[in-house]
Amino acid sequence: MTETAAARRGGRDSRRGQRSSPSYAMLPGLTRGLPLVEPMTPEQVEKIDRASMDILEQVGVVFRDPVAIADWTRAGADVRGDRVRLDRGLVRELIATIPGEITYHARDPHKNVRLGGPHSIFVPMTGAPYLRDLDDVRRSPTLDDLAMFHKLAHMSPALHSSAHHIVEPMDHPVAHRHLRITYSSMKHSDKIFMGMTTSGRNAEDVLDMCAILFGAKFIETHPVVTGNCNGNSPLVWDETMLGAMRAFCRRNQPVLCSPFVLGGANTPASTAPAVAQLNAEALAALAYTQVIRKGAPAIYGHYLSTVSMASGAPMAGTPEISLMNFMIGQMARHYGVPWRTSNTLGGAKTLDAQAGYESATTMMAVLMAGANYIWHSAGWNEAGMHCSVAKFMVDAEQCAMGHRLAEGIRWDDFDEALAAVRDIGPGGHYLGHPHTLANFQRAFFMPRLFDNNSYEQWTAEGAKNTTERALEQARKMLKDYEEPRVDPAIDEELRAYIARREREIPAADALNEDY
Amino acid sequence: MTETAAARRGGRDSRRGQRSSPSYAMLPGLTRGLPLVEPMTPEQVEKIDRASMDILEQVGVVFRDPVAIADWTRAGADVRGDRVRLDRGLVRELIATIPGEITYHARDPHKNVRLGGPHSIFVPMTGAPYLRDLDDVRRSPTLDDLAMFHKLAHMSPALHSSAHHIVEPMDHPVAHRHLRITYSSMKHSDKIFMGMTTSGRNAEDVLDMCAILFGAKFIETHPVVTGNCNGNSPLVWDETMLGAMRAFCRRNQPVLCSPFVLGGANTPASTAPAVAQLNAEALAALAYTQVIRKGAPAIYGHYLSTVSMASGAPMAGTPEISLMNFMIGQMARHYGVPWRTSNTLGGAKTLDAQAGYESATTMMAVLMAGANYIWHSAGWNEAGMHCSVAKFMVDAEQCAMGHRLAEGIRWDDFDEALAAVRDIGPGGHYLGHPHTLANFQRAFFMPRLFDNNSYEQWTAEGAKNTTERALEQARKMLKDYEEPRVDPAIDEELRAYIARREREIPAADALNEDY
Repeated sequence: MTETAAARRGGRDSRRGQRSSPSYAMLPGLTRGLPLVEPMTPEQVEKIDRASMDILEQVGVVFRDPVAIADWTRAGADVRGDRVRLDRGLVRELIATIPGEITYHARDPHKNVRLGGPHSIFVPMTGAPYLRDLDDVRRSPTLDDLAMFHKLAHMSPALHSSAHHIVEPMDHPVAHRHLRITYSSMKHSDKIFMGMTTSGRNAEDVLDMCAILFGAKFIETHPVVTGNCNGNSPLVWDETMLGAMRAFCRRNQPVLCSPFVLGGANTPASTAPAVAQLNAEALAALAYTQVIRKGAPAIYGHYLSTVSMASGAPMAGTPEISLMNFMIGQMARHYGVPWRTSNTLGGAKTLDAQAGYESATTMMAVLMAGANYIWHSAGWNEAGMHCSVAKFMVDAEQCAMGHRLAEGIRWDDFDEALAAVRDIGPGGHYLGHPHTLANFQRAFFMPRLFDNNSYEQWTAEGAKNTTERALEQARKMLKDYEEPRVDPAIDEELRAYIARREREIPAADALNEDY
Repeated sequence: MTETAAARRGGRDSRRGQRSSPSYAMLPGLTRGLPLVEPMTPEQVEKIDRASMDILEQVGVVFRDPVAIADWTRAGADVRGDRVRLDRGLVRELIATIPGEITYHARDPHKNVRLGGPHSIFVPMTGAPYLRDLDDVRRSPTLDDLAMFHKLAHMSPALHSSAHHIVEPMDHPVAHRHLRITYSSMKHSDKIFMGMTTSGRNAEDVLDMCAILFGAKFIETHPVVTGNCNGNSPLVWDETMLGAMRAFCRRNQPVLCSPFVLGGANTPASTAPAVAQLNAEALAALAYTQVIRKGAPAIYGHYLSTVSMASGAPMAGTPEISLMNFMIGQMARHYGVPWRTSNTLGGAKTLDAQAGYESATTMMAVLMAGANYIWHSAGWNEAGMHCSVAKFMVDAEQCAMGHRLAEGIRWDDFDEALAAVRDIGPGGHYLGHPHTLANFQRAFFMPRLFDNNSYEQWTAEGAKNTTERALEQARKMLKDYEEPRVDPAIDEELRAYIARREREIPAADALNEDY
């Protein structure tokens, strides 16, 4: 065998090897190497800021929560009934103490990730009342289904976090769910995760469990879990969310302050004014986090969709959502606060072409916008009504591609590769060249879930569509799953906590549907 | 009826009206209002330029064409055999005379479009040997199928151009096809179109037909048609393409100078070096256009895919392709030359999720990269092996969304919409507000081909997937089609030209498959 033939054989063998044994190792947190898309001039950023501050001063924000009203009164805001008018000086002073960057600590410290500035993470979807399962059947989820998604999140390299109720475990009483959900997040993955914010008391349970898992003292100074608090646009924050916010802030754990925007329905029908309103809402909540506890980590958030004026349905992947993401990123950076957006949103009912177009458009926009906490990055479909196993797999691979894209251009082998151009010369090919053999694994991303073979080969292999390929891959992944061990004493303590709380929480609440 | 109820009724009626009667009017050429994504520093742009110029000077480019070799010898290049080494001074001097911006003239002057700088156009795919038809059946295309695609291009608002052989009319002899293709482009749409470059002589036929349609004198000073000339990477330009290039340049019609890059197979397996090689190839061809005719319009082009090192298959929508698009845009702007890229590429075999992810990723990348001539913007699937009617429809709608995105942020109703925020206040909703009623039609893009209704409603309406919805829309569009009239005398002359040339071109060539 000639040297070249050996090199080729080696290349083929390692290529085959690379293809058959996927790595489940987590990619490092994304550190951005691409420039940001910032369509607003500094004057336009000021214009939005001014409009938002005018709204806060003149229109005000409703806090439907007596504790928050008392807090705001003490903080010196103009409070009349449940309407709080916030002076721009006070807002600026309060948000100034929000950390611009935080480091999350995971159960496996190799999976710690930074957030803020150029540092971003991908987090899967949450909150689906249905799933499309391993057979692509749409049905009600169970706690086992939730565990499955926690496992898939654990094993997906580009997901830097698991989440909480990726799907709602409908086989469990509502009042007890937050305990089981939290335990599943902790048990099935050693990545960071999210905490339920369905009430102040439920949030306390989550944080107590975090204190058991990580140590009460440790979590006092280390972010380990994220709570999400949705606002009610326009300009309302309610008691449930504010109660949970207080629980997280008091324990120094990050909260997403997320106005819930259906552009055109609960905002003006125009992008820049909608951003001005959303920004006012986010600022009010961000400011309140610092009333609760100065220096507590908080994240500028939002859920953002536009509404079809023909049908009233929420839409995703529309140009205005991309534009608003660009703008909101600029505003969050203007205030020096990390920001959360939503990825891969869409209203398709199956993992069809619509789902692909919507998700990829959103992914590209939020990457170019420089979002830090990139939530709903896997599984979302049907406007969040179901989490699809197949889509979870495809989205997670798209995140890996987005990770590679946002890292930017590699220059480290530039001179060496140009030497290859001289070696090969006009009319040659590079497949056998030593530079190619040495670099092919990292040179060009090769999506596993997309079929780029010929029509004939694709047909011969069963003409599988994207959903079928993704579900096969999910089954394989779950077969390879290994549970990351929790210290048995800690596990025991977590179980005892859950058992006690389930005894304490009235069974009647099992029917409580108020979240 | 109260005033508010009347306003609501009016809103509903006009919303319903807007939904049922689509407009086929062409959107204006895209004038970019978004910032560009430029990941290279000025020093890195210089680095690529220097590497490309080194390749041109030291490695050289092969022109497999005696006429080009004679031209280059006269132009003072270092010619040895068919290898041409180009001094960077000569290259810079030659490309300096390429117009930075051109205005295309269409049969309907309202459909003239500018190209270059911030001005971009969407052009459908070409070259497919198969189609997926109105029943989503994959089969061999006919001249009637081609006419159908020319009609769809004519009626799709965001497509600024028709094209030439969107699909190959297999029911016609190869040697005569260019005539029938050109006639179909001219007859079925009054937008601009593309011209066949399958040989120098065929290109002459196209240009003769353009002279009949527009007047010989008119086309001498007005761009009306575009020719594409592919290079053979690495570093080869062949006789067929160069012959066609000469035909177009001599008549002052724009040519796309398009290295045909399969990253990793005919370039180094690394993005920045691949761009350096591609840039050298493009520069060699762009320089040659100016040897042919100083001041002739020319467009920096490329076809760009990366190759799976596992299977050898071309891939699309990968992060490296996006990065290369960003970089190539920077290079073209560095030289002050308009640039062409490819949109909506992908290797899916049907209009499934893969097709959606690949296409949308590419669309977003090329929009953010600032491409001017955005080719293959509708219909492409299966690595270009088929044009899909359904995908053509969806892609064309995506182009309309991309058009809206790249225009940037509207600020014209900012103060008025903020007044609405004061009117509505905390906890209200905007659907009935006069600002919403006045602005909803333009506020948020509403894709017709995506279903954002509830699962229940979608099921009740037949659970149609994206492909079915798109094919319904295509059938409706074709029913509404009205042929844009050509002056009967000109039509007669075109038909006579075709008849004469079909008599002149030997029937034996009907079997010529050399393009």
